[in-house]
This record gives sequence, structure tokens and C-alpha cells, in this order.
Amino acid sequence: MVEFAGIEEDVAKMESSNKQTEQKVTPWTVETHSNTGIDYDKLIIQFGSQKISPDLIERLEKLTSKKAHHFLRRGIFFSHREFSEILTRYEQKKPFYLYTGRGPSSEALHIGHLIPFIFTKWLQEVFEVPLVIQLTDDEKFYWKDLTVEQTTQMAKENMKDIIACGFDPDKTFIFTDFEFMGPPFYRNVARIRNCVNYNQVRSIFGFTDSDSIGKISFPAIQAAPALSTSFPFIFGDNKDVHCLIPCGIDQDPYFRMTRDVAPRLGHPKPALLHSVFFPALQGAQTKMSASNPNSSIFLTDTEKQIKNKVNKYAFSGGGDTIEAHREKGGNCDVDISFQYLRFFLEDDDRLEQIRKDYTSGELLTGYLKKELINVLQKMIKDHQTARAAVTDEVIRKFTTRRPLKFTN
Amino acid sequence: MVEFAGIEEDVAKMESSNKQTEQKVTPWTVETHSNTGIDYDKLIIQFGSQKISPDLIERLEKLTSKKAHHFLRRGIFFSHREFSEILTRYEQKKPFYLYTGRGPSSEALHIGHLIPFIFTKWLQEVFEVPLVIQLTDDEKFYWKDLTVEQTTQMAKENMKDIIACGFDPDKTFIFTDFEFMGPPFYRNVARIRNCVNYNQVRSIFGFTDSDSIGKISFPAIQAAPALSTSFPFIFGDNKDVHCLIPCGIDQDPYFRMTRDVAPRLGHPKPALLHSVFFPALQGAQTKMSASNPNSSIFLTDTEKQIKNKVNKYAFSGGGDTIEAHREKGGNCDVDISFQYLRFFLEDDDRLEQIRKDYTSGELLTGYLKKELINVLQKMIKDHQTARAAVTDEVIRKFTTRRPLKFTN
Repeated sequence: MVEFAGIEEDVAKMESSNKQTEQKVTPWTVETHSNTGIDYDKLIIQFGSQKISPDLIERLEKLTSKKAHHFLRRGIFFSHREFSEILTRYEQKKPFYLYTGRGPSSEALHIGHLIPFIFTKWLQEVFEVPLVIQLTDDEKFYWKDLTVEQTTQMAKENMKDIIACGFDPDKTFIFTDFEFMGPPFYRNVARIRNCVNYNQVRSIFGFTDSDSIGKISFPAIQAAPALSTSFPFIFGDNKDVHCLIPCGIDQDPYFRMTRDVAPRLGHPKPALLHSVFFPALQGAQTKMSASNPNSSIFLTDTEKQIKNKVNKYAFSGGGDTIEAHREKGGNCDVDISFQYLRFFLEDDDRLEQIRKDYTSGELLTGYLKKELINVLQKMIKDHQTARAAVTDEVIRKFTTRRPLKFTN
Repeated sequence: MVEFAGIEEDVAKMESSNKQTEQKVTPWTVETHSNTGIDYDKLIIQFGSQKISPDLIERLEKLTSKKAHHFLRRGIFFSHREFSEILTRYEQKKPFYLYTGRGPSSEALHIGHLIPFIFTKWLQEVFEVPLVIQLTDDEKFYWKDLTVEQTTQMAKENMKDIIACGFDPDKTFIFTDFEFMGPPFYRNVARIRNCVNYNQVRSIFGFTDSDSIGKISFPAIQAAPALSTSFPFIFGDNKDVHCLIPCGIDQDPYFRMTRDVAPRLGHPKPALLHSVFFPALQGAQTKMSASNPNSSIFLTDTEKQIKNKVNKYAFSGGGDTIEAHREKGGNCDVDISFQYLRFFLEDDDRLEQIRKDYTSGELLTGYLKKELINVLQKMIKDHQTARAAVTDEVIRKFTTRRPLKFTN
């Protein structure tokens, strides 16, 4: 085996950096000892990615003749790896595809889970390229106390929510690992496993000797969809199809590993677009938990539940009293209603007006909550309607191995 | 994860025992510092298996009304785990199946590679039960400096030699890992991986931190065919189908692991029948090597090559001079011609006569060589004829997922 010096150095650097900044971000842990939450600028330095600059956004808008998605304009997708290379390929009309995914952990998704899918749908519309979506039911089996049957069922339920986001059925292939594992996918999984040793996955992911060999060998399964030859029914045997991965920044370790391995297998390194974490209703410093239904808004919530949860739990950045608030103003950086509006209120002018008026103290938290309740009630109602239309036949269409349309 | 105390204790015992006896047997290494080769009685103690007793052989003969195969009568299959349970199931007409396999390492097999297949074919005839044969092309990819395509090609060539051994096409399913990996096989691989951690595979197989995650996670792939639910097209979802694995004793570590895991997944422990190692032409203390064509007889050898190799290389247990030989006699225990006849000369009386006359000094090594040449030339010619009849259609029959006949 060829030694994998590059990654180990990176990881050593990252680990020492993790200690200095007292924040730890892996696919399974997000920890910070700072009162202000994760420092994303420091995370970019730790991970060695690039900040998405106004210039890069401008270039995207020019090339596609479309206004950038508000997730980009508002720094929700804030970091990238080689996104400019993807734009160059778009400019040159060279093929690339999108890859995103989800580890199905509970049957009901919350609104934070939609972030990568909402954004990926927009990327698909703008670039008109194929998209593959991986549901890592096996990952959840290895990490959680669940049976294969349970993770399979969760994946099936999650799949409906994902399809309900509105992906183009002619350009989208969705698969679960337990179903898709096999030739040719396993061949690429094996090729990747052959390039990575235990030392390396321990460094990158923090595995220990008492972790199962399922966990230890899993990273290759999340890496493999970044190689176009994992999908011969879409890309034939063409290795020169680049891959762009929109994902939460906690998933970056998988793709750092993938970027080191891919060139050794004759594939390009995948490019990435990283999003920030979605905050819990109780505030950015608390942890969202599927086992606490009050920590977020779920896609299955009723209008009434949404209203009650926002009113009762959404952390307020306002003053302690109306008088204090009028005098000192509210703090948008910590106010969860404002933060959620930043994610889901598309109207820039309106958001900016709210920001100003809340900061000045003119608007009270109650107003922001009402605004957010309206936005979420509509969004979730629309989602529930779309999800109800996801029949078994629709699922079959998305999960059938078939050629996909490449407009670009 | 539930801790796996049983195995670790066994392995610790085995390792300390390995040191005491100065012999090391793993799927990749067979080492001894003893001049007399591997001490199989000590290996049985090290591994914690049982010696195949005359009583057990007698019971097999009584139950099946067939004479035991000469591999059993001559101690070539010498050790077992719970073979008596299989006989009880046979007696009770309860279902079981056979599982054996091979790691395809080079396109041409040598006669030693046939041992498990010759014996398994006999078991299939006697018990009239289904058989699954695994070709671990992925294992060879992880361990050798070969591409996926190369190991796939080797597996295809090896498969022809295996089919040429004469397995019943109505009772035999043959697969390669790269082709067969997928649902439902991967589900069982995952279930096994979930039960085994890095500490355990390191203890059992001697892995190190610089071994690839392909190697580290592979043992689950060799374990999975021992679970009947890996083959729903044969066994449905019936977990109560026992598995009997005839194999070289070097493969036992895989199945010690399997026997610990299987009950935790609701499956019975597989039973085993272990064979001794096949000696190189140059003697039991030398290593057979696919890269040295003179170290064994290959299934592709011509009559002339067989004759030349045996005459030139087969280690002699005879005296230094004819006079010394006539006086002191020959040593059958080290004479390779005699040893090979023990494997391949089916006529017990004739073998016994040769043993007596060689030991007494009456017969010279040249006579044994001539006898061996005749046996091997016929055997290999028959094999080559059978192999030539293995068309793509025949292969398709054996490799198609389908129900198999269960006479018992």
C-alpha cells in the first residue's frame, strides 16, 4: 500500500488546530467550548477549505444568468473546495454531477434536514446536471442501536421527504446503501478501501480499536458515489465527470479522504460546498435532538404545533423587558426566530427590514415569531402536500438505475 | 456493541500456544520452526477443534451406508468442529448445506487446490445437500498487488476448474464476491461487521494499523455465506439450516469468528471439517509457490511436464544409495511421491502394499515416482477434458441465483 502522507499531515494539523480553538467537528460530534457557537472562519482554517467569496458568487451569477440562492448570499453555504473548477467546467460545457445524501436516523425529518436538499435542488435547476442522492442506511445500522430492517424503513420514509423537495425525476437517482451495494458500486468501494488504512481512518474520523469493522470500513461507502464510475448507467465508464457535493461542513472529513483517494484511482477530486449547522429552537449553543420533539420543527408538525413550539421555545434575542428592548434593541445573531427567517424567508428586502427594525428595538420578538410561524406553516404545508403525492411509483422512478438527462 | 469476550480469550490462548509450539497458522501464513513440519495434533489443541476419530468416521459410514472418503480414512481431513451435529441432523432429516471456497490468486490451479473441492464433491454426493462456493476475488484484491479486473478474471478461470470437479449443477451455487455483493448478502455482511471490532480482528487475524480497511473488514465477507439467510433464493428466510464447511485448517480463524457471531444473529454455528496442508514437490518443509512452477503440479501441465517435474523435483525419502536403501528402507513420511499417492491413489490395498515395500527397502523411489506420474497424468488429463466442457452456458447455470435441490 502506498502511504497516505498527505492526509495524515492534514489531520495532524487539524487535530492540533482543533485543540487550540476548542471546537471539534466530525460527522458524529459538533462540540465547542466557546459561548458564541462554532467559529466558522476558524473551521475553514482548521479544515483547509475556502470561504465562498462575493467574487465567486458573482461569477456563478454571471455564468448562469441567475441570482444566487439566498443560502449563498446569506452565508448559509459559506465554504467550498474547488467550486471555481466546477464553474469553469460549466463554462466549458464539460460534464459534472451533483452528489448529496443523508443518514436516515429517524422517520420524521426536521426543517434543518432540508437545507442541503433545498440547495441541491436549486443547483440542479441552475446547472441542469444529474444528481445522485445516497441514503446511508448501513451507516445508521453501524452507529445506532437499530436493526437492518429499521434503518431500511427509515430510509424509505426519508426518501419520500427528499423526493418531495421537488427534484427533477429525469435528472435524479436516489439509492440506499443496502439496496445499491453490489457491482459496480462495491468495486469502487473496494478500490477506495484498498487505498486507506486503519491509521488513516482513525486519524480522520477518531475511530478507536473497539469500534466495529462496520464503522471502520464505512467511510469508503460514503466516498464511492463521488466517483462517476459508481454509476455506469448514468456516466458509462467516463472517469472525467467531476462531482460537486453540497453538504453540511461536518461531512467534510469523508470528502477530504475522498479527495486524497480519487486521483489515485484516476478520478478527479470532488468539489464541495459546505453549509453551517442548523440551530436548535432553544439556541445555537444547544443541541438539536430527534428524541426531543421540542428542539426543532418537524416536517410532520401541524400548524398548531409549529405555532406553539415557536412561541414557547424559540430563543429570543430581545431585551428582558419591553422597555429595555425598545432602548437597547434585539440581537439578531442569537434570536432563533430571526436565524430561522434567515434560512427560510426568501424576500431579501423584507428580511433586511426585519433585521434593522429588530436591532433598533422597534420590532419585538413576538413579531418575528409571528412572521416565522407564517413562513414555516406555509413551507411545511406545501411539503406535506408534496410528500403525499410521492407514491410508490414515483419512488420507483427515482430509484431505478437508468440514464439521466445531462442538459449541460 | 456487546463485548466479544469469548473470542478474545480463545485467541489469547491460541497466541500463547502458538509461541510455545513455535508454529503459526493463519489464512496468510503457515510457519513452523520444527523440522518435522506442522504438528497437527498440537494445532488441534491450539485451535480448540476436535480430532476426527475412528468412531466418528464409523458413524458417518453407518448413517450414509457409504465407505468414508479416503481423505477421511487417511487423516487428510483430520480435524472438525461439531461434525457430529451435522450427522445428527442428517439422521433426523433436518436441512443443512455445504459451503467452501477459494481465494483466486493465479489463473492456473495446482493439484493441492483441488483437495477441498474433491472432498466437498464427495460430501455433496453422500449427503445430497446444496452447496455454495465462494470465490473471494475481493480478498485477493485487498491482499495482492492486483486490479479488480485481474482478480475478476482469475476468479472466472478458477471457476472453470472448480466446476470441472463435477459438482451437481442442481445442487450447487457458485459466486464471486464482486458479483454477489449486494442485497441480501451485504445485509448479512453488515450484521457480522456490526458484531466484530478492530481489537477482535487484530487478535484473530494479526492485522496491524497500517492494514487497509479493505483487509480489516474482509473477514465478515468470508463469514457471511455460513448464514443461510445470505441465500434466500435457496433457503428462503429459514435460519435453521446448518452449514458444514470443509476447508484447509488455515481458514479456521475466519470460522472461529463466524461461530462466535452466528448465534448472536439467530443462526446456528457452522460446523467444520479441516484438512492438512498439501506439501510442495520439494518436501513438506518448503513452501509451495504459484510463482515457482516447479513447486507443484498444475492443472494445466502436460503429461511430459508432470513426468519431468516428479522425476526431477519430488523429494525422496529413500536411501542415499541403492545399497543403503535396500538395507534401511525408505521413509514414507517425507517421501513426496508417497505423500502425493496418499492424496490421489484411491486404492487402499495398493497404497498399503507400496508403503510396506518402500519402507522395507524393496521398492525404490523411482518406482513410486512412476506410480505417481501415472496417477497424476490420468487425473490431470481427466480434469482437462472436464474443464474443456465448461462452457459459458455451464458457468451461467452454476452462477444463477436459483433454488437448489435438497434431497435430504
